[in-house]
Formats: sequence, C-alpha cells, structure tokens
Amino acid sequence: MAANVNETNDVTLTKPIRCIVKLGGAAITCKNELEKINEKNLEIVSSQLRQTMISSENVVSLDWSKRPGTSDISCNVDSFGDQLSFDANKFIVVHGAGSFGHFQASKSGVHKGGMDQPLVKAGFVATRISVTTLNLEIVRALARVWSFSFSSLLGRFSFLLCQPYNSSLSLEVDHSALTYHFVFLAEGIPSIGMSPFSCGWSTSGRNIASADLPAVAKAIESGFIPVLHGDAVFDDIQGCTILSGDVIIRHLAEHLKPEYVVFLTDVFGVYDRPPSEPDAVLLKEIAVSEDGRWSVIKPTLQDINKQVEITVAAHDTTGGMVTKISEAAMIAKLGIDVYIVKAATSHSLRALSGEVRSNVPDDWLGTVIRRTSR
Amino acid sequence: MAANVNETNDVTLTKPIRCIVKLGGAAITCKNELEKINEKNLEIVSSQLRQTMISSENVVSLDWSKRPGTSDISCNVDSFGDQLSFDANKFIVVHGAGSFGHFQASKSGVHKGGMDQPLVKAGFVATRISVTTLNLEIVRALARVWSFSFSSLLGRFSFLLCQPYNSSLSLEVDHSALTYHFVFLAEGIPSIGMSPFSCGWSTSGRNIASADLPAVAKAIESGFIPVLHGDAVFDDIQGCTILSGDVIIRHLAEHLKPEYVVFLTDVFGVYDRPPSEPDAVLLKEIAVSEDGRWSVIKPTLQDINKQVEITVAAHDTTGGMVTKISEAAMIAKLGIDVYIVKAATSHSLRALSGEVRSNVPDDWLGTVIRRTSR
Repeated sequence: MAANVNETNDVTLTKPIRCIVKLGGAAITCKNELEKINEKNLEIVSSQLRQTMISSENVVSLDWSKRPGTSDISCNVDSFGDQLSFDANKFIVVHGAGSFGHFQASKSGVHKGGMDQPLVKAGFVATRISVTTLNLEIVRALARVWSFSFSSLLGRFSFLLCQPYNSSLSLEVDHSALTYHFVFLAEGIPSIGMSPFSCGWSTSGRNIASADLPAVAKAIESGFIPVLHGDAVFDDIQGCTILSGDVIIRHLAEHLKPEYVVFLTDVFGVYDRPPSEPDAVLLKEIAVSEDGRWSVIKPTLQDINKQVEITVAAHDTTGGMVTKISEAAMIAKLGIDVYIVKAATSHSLRALSGEVRSNVPDDWLGTVIRRTSR
Repeated sequence: MAANVNETNDVTLTKPIRCIVKLGGAAITCKNELEKINEKNLEIVSSQLRQTMISSENVVSLDWSKRPGTSDISCNVDSFGDQLSFDANKFIVVHGAGSFGHFQASKSGVHKGGMDQPLVKAGFVATRISVTTLNLEIVRALARVWSFSFSSLLGRFSFLLCQPYNSSLSLEVDHSALTYHFVFLAEGIPSIGMSPFSCGWSTSGRNIASADLPAVAKAIESGFIPVLHGDAVFDDIQGCTILSGDVIIRHLAEHLKPEYVVFLTDVFGVYDRPPSEPDAVLLKEIAVSEDGRWSVIKPTLQDINKQVEITVAAHDTTGGMVTKISEAAMIAKLGIDVYIVKAATSHSLRALSGEVRSNVPDDWLGTVIRRTSR
C-alpha cells in the first residue's frame, strides 16, 4: 500500500522510539456531543502518558498561556534547573477526531474527494479548522501541569502546584448533599503539534503518497513529543481525502519501528460482537500471520465468530473499528505488538508503561495483537 | 542570505499570486494585554480581505465549528451551488504574534537558541502553543461568516446571516444608559493554517535554510489561502530560533513573486521618528536602490533624519520596525512594491485592493516602498 512513498523517508534515530500511542477519538471526546472534549479522560490520559514518558521529579508546566479568567501567565522560570529529563522515553502521540471534524467531513464528502466542488472545498477548510482545534487542545493538555482543584456545591477553589509532585490522584466523594471533587495531577510533556496536512502528508488513491518523516524524527531527536492527528489532506488522484489517525500510525510504525503501539479507546478492547451486547466476549489475544490473516488465540471459545462484528458510527468517515483492526494487524505483522485498551483505566497505564509486554497478566483487560510466533 | 535554500523550492504557479499580506501582531492583538486578540480590528481586516479576494455574491461560512453557547453547528450545505469563486485572487496571509508568543519566547530566550537548556526547550513548546492558538483564531476569523449581532445592556441577540450579503458594517451607538453594538460582516475565505515549524521551515544561523514552498504553492493552486505566522523553528547552528513573519514574507516574495505586498500595522506607516511624537512625519514614499540602500522620496523635507528612528517594544524578540523596514526594502529591491498601512482603515482597503498601485493618491495615508526607477 505504501509502495510509492519516497525512499528518503527512511530515517535513523539515535535511540529507538518506545511507543506510538493512539488517543482514540471516542476516548478523548464526547462522541455524541458536537466538538466536546472528554476533559476528565483527557486529564487522566495526559497524566498516565506523563508517568510513562518522564521520570523527572521536577514538574513544571510547558503551557504558559493565559488561563480563562486570569490576566497573567503562570510560569516560574526559576523552577527550571538542569534536572528536567524530557527525552527519557521517546513517544509519538496520534489522535483521532471523535466529535471534531467527522461532522464537517461527512457532511461535505471530503473523504470521497472532488475538490472542484465548492462544498467539498469548503468542507476541507471546515474539517481542518475543527481537527486542528482539537489538536491544539490536546497539545495544551499534555504540556500543562494540572492545578489542584477542589470543588463542591459551596464553590470551586483552585491553585497551581508549586511543589514538585510526581503522582496523580482523582477522586470524587459524594457526601450527603455536598459533592467534593479533587483533581491532583501533574504533567509537563514537551508536546509539539504536527498537523499532517502541514507536515507534507498526502495520499494517492487514499494510500499514503508522501509524509515528512524526517521532520517527525527531528522533533523526537530534539526531545519533543510529536502530536499528529487524523486530517484532511490532498490526494493525487481524487483531489482530497481524510487520512485517518490509524493509517498514520501504521505508516509511522512501519518506518520508525517503535517497540510497541497502544490504541487507547472507549471499550476494553476488541470483542466478538458489539460490546453493548450482553454476551460480547473480549478477545484478549489475536495472532496475525505473515499473509496478514488474523485469528483469535485467547479465549479459545468455539462459538466465536471468525469474522468479528463491529459497529461503525454513521458519522465516522474513516471506518471506525474495521480500519483499526486491519491497521493494527498490519502493524503486528511487522513484529510490533499492538495493545488495544480502554483509556484512563489501570489497564491503559499498564499497557503504556510496557508492563504487560513480556507476559499478559490474567487480570489485565485489553486486546493484544501479535505476529504469529514461528 | 537565502543562498543555502534548496533549489527544489522554486515553484511555478498557473496564475501569479496577487498579494502577500502581513497582519501585524500590533494590529490584530492588544499588544499590552497578554494573549488578547483585537477582535474589532480582526473582524474589519477579515472583511477587507474578503472583499479584495473573493468576488462571489454567494456568501457562506467555512468555519462550521460550534459557537460558544450553542450546541449545534450553523452550516447550510444547500447554500453551496457552483457559484463560489474561491480562487478569484490568489493571496497569502502571514501574521505576527503581537501579545501571543513574544512573552514565552523572550522569557525563555528561544530566539537565542540552546535547545540543551531545559528552559529554552520548555519555552519552545510554550511559544508554539501560544502562536498556533493565534493562528487558529485567525484562520477561523477569515473562514467565518460573521453573524449579525445586536447587544445592549438588556441582553445580546445574534443570528446568522442567511441571505447573501456582500458588504460590511460595524457601528456602535451610545444612547443614554443603553449601548447598542451592531456587527454586520460577511466573510468566508478558504483559509488553511500552515504553521512554519510543521511546514518544514528551518534556519541556519537565523537565516532561512529550508521551507516547503511547493506545499504553499499547492495550497494556493487548489484555491486555498495559506495562513502562515512567525514561529519557533529549528536552527542548524544554534538549535532553535524565532522565525519572524517579516522574514517569512521576504522569502515567500522572493520565490513566489507576488504582484505586491501589504503590511497591515497599527500606525499609518513609517515615520521619521516615533509616531507618538507630535512632530513625527509620515514617510509616504521610500525608494530602494539596487544595493539595498533606501532614501525618502516623499515628502522632500530637509530636516528629515536619514536614519529613521524606530521604537522597539522590549518584548518584541524579532526586532519590530527595524526588521520590518529592512525586510520591506529587500522585497522592494526585487521589483515588488510594498505598502505599509494602518490596518482596518479605508487606507488599508485601498492598498489591499491594489487601487493605489498605479498612482498613489494624495489622500492615501501609508508608506510605499519601491525600487528606484532606472
């Protein structure tokens, strides 16, 4: 599929990339509410990523922008010593669109091409505005040191963490009529937004035709965490299309060879039928053979459909779970393990940290997709 | 200065670019208020750009994002016929940072380089977050069809323009205790954000070393209006630096040869001393010779200082007016006329439309910088 990609895309890294993480659109946005971020999930996901990426004790925010309701910037430059170890672990983050972009893309048919049609051209602009809005919010969320906030019916009180703090805690207590909500998180990931359209990604017949991988590698080598996303791009044949985050991940995995790939989603993994159905069985291990065919290894149930059923939301222009599984299988075929896991859970933290790599524990909920051992 | 730039950057366009427009940071942001957009100026500037770029009668918004306080998207796909003529005039928009980015950049010293220092690396992240936030807001402002809004102390009432409307009106009436504010504007520019860092712009010793101009040309050829901005970029020698919007414009002008360049700023043009001083004289015409030296042609006053005084705000890491004039002179040397004019005035509309090109009228306020006629 990627045969036409320019050979100059092959890049070398001084240290291999540890992990490529997909933040699924359904996990970080409220999928049924237009252009709404799932703030709680994004906070926890950011915190888990920080814990797995950065070992530094010195926690400082890298988002020095003004906060709503304040007139000043909270940035203490004196807190920067030589202790920060940004490049402890090399990661790439790719996110989906969820309730951003999909509406604009499907309404105008950007994925089907036809740039000479005014509606498609307008949809291209509208889609890019929507997905880059989400990208910026995610870059900010990753770069931010979360403030400690305490809210109850009596009011909301927040203050910025000044002391180094290296953990996260989020709890909610319902105490009779009063609800207390504590958020105590600390981030500071050196995230850099790299919008695929701007970064030279384009397709030909919906397959990737070009991608500026040296730019991604340069950002990583410089100690940054590139944050890419599903985007509207030019297509040599049909004019334009939607390049999904999943296809981007497969391309990055193929050329940058990460140790493993984690897909954070809104369900525990891949099921044999829609997970909303009562008898749905979580497929914990899927093996992919060299010819790309995949089979369920665990659990070994006789009544599992060979062809796993999937649900595709009507507005999901990039194919939803079908694309995800087939892209995951193509990554696994390269010898790179893929973990599909529910975002913002203890299971996602274990997958991100690499804890489940050598041996998948029985109490871990998620789907591992691996190449058949020969 | 640009000798090292890759030759493959030379691009051909089916139709020449009409104009490269600089939206000065001081004109579109509130320079003394942190990260605050000058909404009124941005609305008028967007409207003037629309009038000069698009001749279509059919006005539709290309920003289909949710508006604050609404749960739905205002997009009527039926309003798209074949009448839209997006590519009537080819423009490129480049904006400065104003009160976005400069604080983060100067506080950390990103312009001086040194990516091995944690503070510089953190400042790089913080600067990019701030300038890309502004870029997104400008792309949205250009793409938007402004709603008609009516606000008074009694409340605020807005509705989207449904009828084609091709003009702009903004007035404010203070009627005793009640203040009425009307905004009646219509845009719909197919703007595409192209962040220089992401688009492969980098420097070597602070001079441009690479820039993906074919990507800019491709966007223009496809009927879009690229929107670039001053950005934090990698530098081959010092690690990183700030690439100013003015330097970007000079590079674009050199390679894409627009018919003319307009700098929209917060004063009427270039003065012989700080424009705040009572005796300051507006320099209406400056001639640039082949060796790059420039002299004031109009007015022909004997007491004008040859060396024009300029004021540089302390937080302006890219050099303010000094950079602007020298970059403008380098563009003029190429035979491309440069107009420096106050944003959101009748003078800026006349400059953008090209009306003042053949003959600069006496009632036009602004500075023209031209190559010496031989």
